[in-house]
Amino acid sequence: MDRLRLCFSGLGVDALLASHPANIRYLCEFSGSAGLLLVEDSGSTLFTDSRYTFQARSEVRGACICIAKKGLLRAAGEALRSRKRRLSVGFSSSHLTVAQMEALKGAAGHRVRFVTDANAVEKLRAVKDSAELAYMAHAAKRISQVFEDALPLIKPGISEIELAGIFEFGMKRLGGAGPSFDTIVASGARSAWAHARPSYNALKKGELVVIDQGLIFVGYCSDMTRTVFIGSAPRKVRELYRAVLEAQEAAKSAIRPGVTAGAVDRAARAVLKRLGLAKYFTHSTGHGLGIEVHEMPRLGRGEEFVLQKDMVVTVEPGIYLQGLGGIRIEDDVVVTENGSADLTTATREFLEL
Amino acid sequence: MDRLRLCFSGLGVDALLASHPANIRYLCEFSGSAGLLLVEDSGSTLFTDSRYTFQARSEVRGACICIAKKGLLRAAGEALRSRKRRLSVGFSSSHLTVAQMEALKGAAGHRVRFVTDANAVEKLRAVKDSAELAYMAHAAKRISQVFEDALPLIKPGISEIELAGIFEFGMKRLGGAGPSFDTIVASGARSAWAHARPSYNALKKGELVVIDQGLIFVGYCSDMTRTVFIGSAPRKVRELYRAVLEAQEAAKSAIRPGVTAGAVDRAARAVLKRLGLAKYFTHSTGHGLGIEVHEMPRLGRGEEFVLQKDMVVTVEPGIYLQGLGGIRIEDDVVVTENGSADLTTATREFLEL
Repeated sequence: MDRLRLCFSGLGVDALLASHPANIRYLCEFSGSAGLLLVEDSGSTLFTDSRYTFQARSEVRGACICIAKKGLLRAAGEALRSRKRRLSVGFSSSHLTVAQMEALKGAAGHRVRFVTDANAVEKLRAVKDSAELAYMAHAAKRISQVFEDALPLIKPGISEIELAGIFEFGMKRLGGAGPSFDTIVASGARSAWAHARPSYNALKKGELVVIDQGLIFVGYCSDMTRTVFIGSAPRKVRELYRAVLEAQEAAKSAIRPGVTAGAVDRAARAVLKRLGLAKYFTHSTGHGLGIEVHEMPRLGRGEEFVLQKDMVVTVEPGIYLQGLGGIRIEDDVVVTENGSADLTTATREFLEL
Repeated sequence: MDRLRLCFSGLGVDALLASHPANIRYLCEFSGSAGLLLVEDSGSTLFTDSRYTFQARSEVRGACICIAKKGLLRAAGEALRSRKRRLSVGFSSSHLTVAQMEALKGAAGHRVRFVTDANAVEKLRAVKDSAELAYMAHAAKRISQVFEDALPLIKPGISEIELAGIFEFGMKRLGGAGPSFDTIVASGARSAWAHARPSYNALKKGELVVIDQGLIFVGYCSDMTRTVFIGSAPRKVRELYRAVLEAQEAAKSAIRPGVTAGAVDRAARAVLKRLGLAKYFTHSTGHGLGIEVHEMPRLGRGEEFVLQKDMVVTVEPGIYLQGLGGIRIEDDVVVTENGSADLTTATREFLEL
């Protein structure tokens, strides 16, 4: 399998030990939560535990399966020790904990040297192949439909949490394998919390509602945000919405192969700065999307990561004014040969419901 | 606040740096996903980022709030460096990654020594106070109701994933803040996967269905499993169900203050061994439950952890026979003065639907 061959080709190591479930899934299709994948030139081995015996046999491609009896780290470490030679092994320092590293080193012995894999698998994952793009386009289209189907229910009296439940039920009804993160429905003053959890508060007339949701389709995430107003919005709010939409469009226009992630962030920020709103834009402009809902690249201030064709990112500027609330508009976008294309199909018009 | 005072009292360190969201929530009530809590005798500081400004102000108890501009690890490390003296700081080696530890050490400088906190906060969390027990009893009762309400829908033709969606919608309708883990609905041969994700497969007459689900109520988890049969079950399946139930009852009877977690596991395993089924019981008997769906203690083979009054654990023996399927029965149980009490209220009778 190409991915297994490619994943440590540039690292100058003898082997790669993948510990992050999303990386393992990408490399060998195993979707269980307990796994370690040892990739070597001579072949690859997935270590998992007895809960996953049948699942591993059904899912894994390109690797042998080893059911570890005394812990995955110990099994993988002992496999490395059994090679009886000096080995350098790439590992993900962003995912292995200090305690896991100690256990692994203890089992592997002194002839095995662990070196950071420099996010080699994450970098591969950033560029999607045609099957991945098809899944992601589908995921984005379906979550758009979940949003539009639920519009008649967004009205005074329904609680944030009930509305979140309706969205998540809609995801499963439309064939998604569930939400890619806990759905955010935040109304009124709470909409100024960029990452609020839904509360028991009921939606009220005259308030903003931020809805941020995504579904997983065949292992791939979508992620979209819309902000609506309950009732007829004051002019000020409509202007703020237009400002955020303009910032989003500027960021999308900046996207094309060869530009840095930081340049896309700068494009969104420049619009809000011109309108005197930059200080209310308190997060980055977007993030990569794929098997995980947050992956490489991050579209943030000063990020040097260079965009390439077939990367998928979110574009989601937002402004948050204490008291008044928050406005965020988020779409999933694929980098094309000459620019970008929207995967999210839901309307971006300002909806007064 | 007691928890902040207690959390590092026995460790012989000058400060504790909590990085695990569940620990941070327990110590200062902040429920955001990005936080670091530095606990010192002189006072505590929560480091978070600008997305969580309003949320932190509304939630945090007993700690100052610091909005970090250049990363939480850097801010916490620099705060430690600014103390301008030798400090030993407890940290959770099971949660901080190798890369995070490097960043933290770089920012803190050479006068700060990091030592493992030996799961000090997790150990505190294992014993619940009366408010926590009330939330957990409520969470267990509500998930039982979600299960019983959905019984009429468990019939041939409905897909695993649609049924999972119905359960999760039921959780939100009954006031849960959503599932405490991805709901498992696994039918037929797939029920032998102890951790299967729901598929598009429709339920069929003559098959076992394992349903494993939990909801979060005011930040606390429930977790229950029931196994039902679609149609009238063969005698063999009914016998297997009785065996698992007997194993579960034996484990519950073994629970009381002073016994080890391993002894509870042994009690369940002994029943299945006597019936010649031990080899099909491929996981441990249960786990602690609270802010997290898996927390201390683990009720597994040889575990020396001693149970105390007011700990909450799951008791969930299961057997998995390739081809025939799986049977698991799981309840949430609190350790009482003299034994244990069920929190889960749903029937454990074998349901043929």
